[in-house]
Amino acid sequence: MSKTPALSKAEATKQKIVEQAAHLFNQQGFAGASMADLMAATGLKKGGIYNHFASKEELAIAAFDYAIEQVQLRYRNVLRQERHSLDRLIAIVHTFRDSTYNPVVQGGCPILNLAIDSDDTNPVLRDRAKQAMDDWRSLICKVIERGIKQGEMQASIAADQAASIIISTLEGAMMMTKLYDDPIHLERAAQHLSQFIKTMEA
Amino acid sequence: MSKTPALSKAEATKQKIVEQAAHLFNQQGFAGASMADLMAATGLKKGGIYNHFASKEELAIAAFDYAIEQVQLRYRNVLRQERHSLDRLIAIVHTFRDSTYNPVVQGGCPILNLAIDSDDTNPVLRDRAKQAMDDWRSLICKVIERGIKQGEMQASIAADQAASIIISTLEGAMMMTKLYDDPIHLERAAQHLSQFIKTMEA
Repeated sequence: MSKTPALSKAEATKQKIVEQAAHLFNQQGFAGASMADLMAATGLKKGGIYNHFASKEELAIAAFDYAIEQVQLRYRNVLRQERHSLDRLIAIVHTFRDSTYNPVVQGGCPILNLAIDSDDTNPVLRDRAKQAMDDWRSLICKVIERGIKQGEMQASIAADQAASIIISTLEGAMMMTKLYDDPIHLERAAQHLSQFIKTMEA
Repeated sequence: MSKTPALSKAEATKQKIVEQAAHLFNQQGFAGASMADLMAATGLKKGGIYNHFASKEELAIAAFDYAIEQVQLRYRNVLRQERHSLDRLIAIVHTFRDSTYNPVVQGGCPILNLAIDSDDTNPVLRDRAKQAMDDWRSLICKVIERGIKQGEMQASIAADQAASIIISTLEGAMMMTKLYDDPIHLERAAQHLSQFIKTMEA
């Protein structure tokens, strides 16, 4: 195991700001998270925050990148435990469903939240959400393409089309589950998608 | 046809504020739509707006209710043209898909936007989003329940479960279509749901 170099005090403070801000922005949105909220969450004064970030937008981007890194780490760990491409897809679906019980960051899916928050208002944040969504689609496409190559999935499957369906269903169900504070919608989505994924078997 | 009574000047101004605010809130969110934005959109001064609404929240609720009324009117008109329950469900899916080309209010689905905007922050607005979502689920459930009663759909179908799937898939696809400014995700969702709905046939 490689040693992680110790963070300087300034780097540690910056990292702490990013982590606290990730939860705050993911719950309250970019416009909804005020400087007073950021100060309360981090325990720092305005100058202590702006010492590390040139603007609220720069902090929001760092916070989103941190959230996405944590999410991607979780999926990588889950996928390492599955070999068959169908099991890998179902593991992705179950990991998303279970995130409602065990969230990486408070407030639901960071991509969904940033997409809705930024799509009509902030092109810089919207591009960040797009990049994260591209990675999420690409992860699913790679699992399907490898599944086809290994003869586990039908060659006729359009990977990007299936990725749209899986992600749409999960993200919409996350919205409903958060709205009602009721996991049933994500449970139903996961069940529906498991059936959908099984129809892909070669 | 019944005559609609003419609006007083004050009522007409109030109605105009609500309509303009509906587009603004649906695009920018509750926190993101500032008083300056509302003044620019309506062409009124702050006092001219607060003359009609006690608070920004009261205006946001009126704007959301207006948006939902318009959306519900569209679905009622569409459903009036279909008799078979399968056709009615598919018409709901197609109407949602087509709203990306022909939106009732700018900014995508008002329920999705308000749900994400309010779920962790504003219980009053969140309850409003829940009410609208209840109506949307209830509409789909009634179509399915009538379909079962008339022998057009399988008696084993759980209406509320199917409603969760249909709404989740559409709302998630709306998020992706808006994020990428690309109708393909809603097109794929509509195609997938049409197949899903066809499996319900008796």
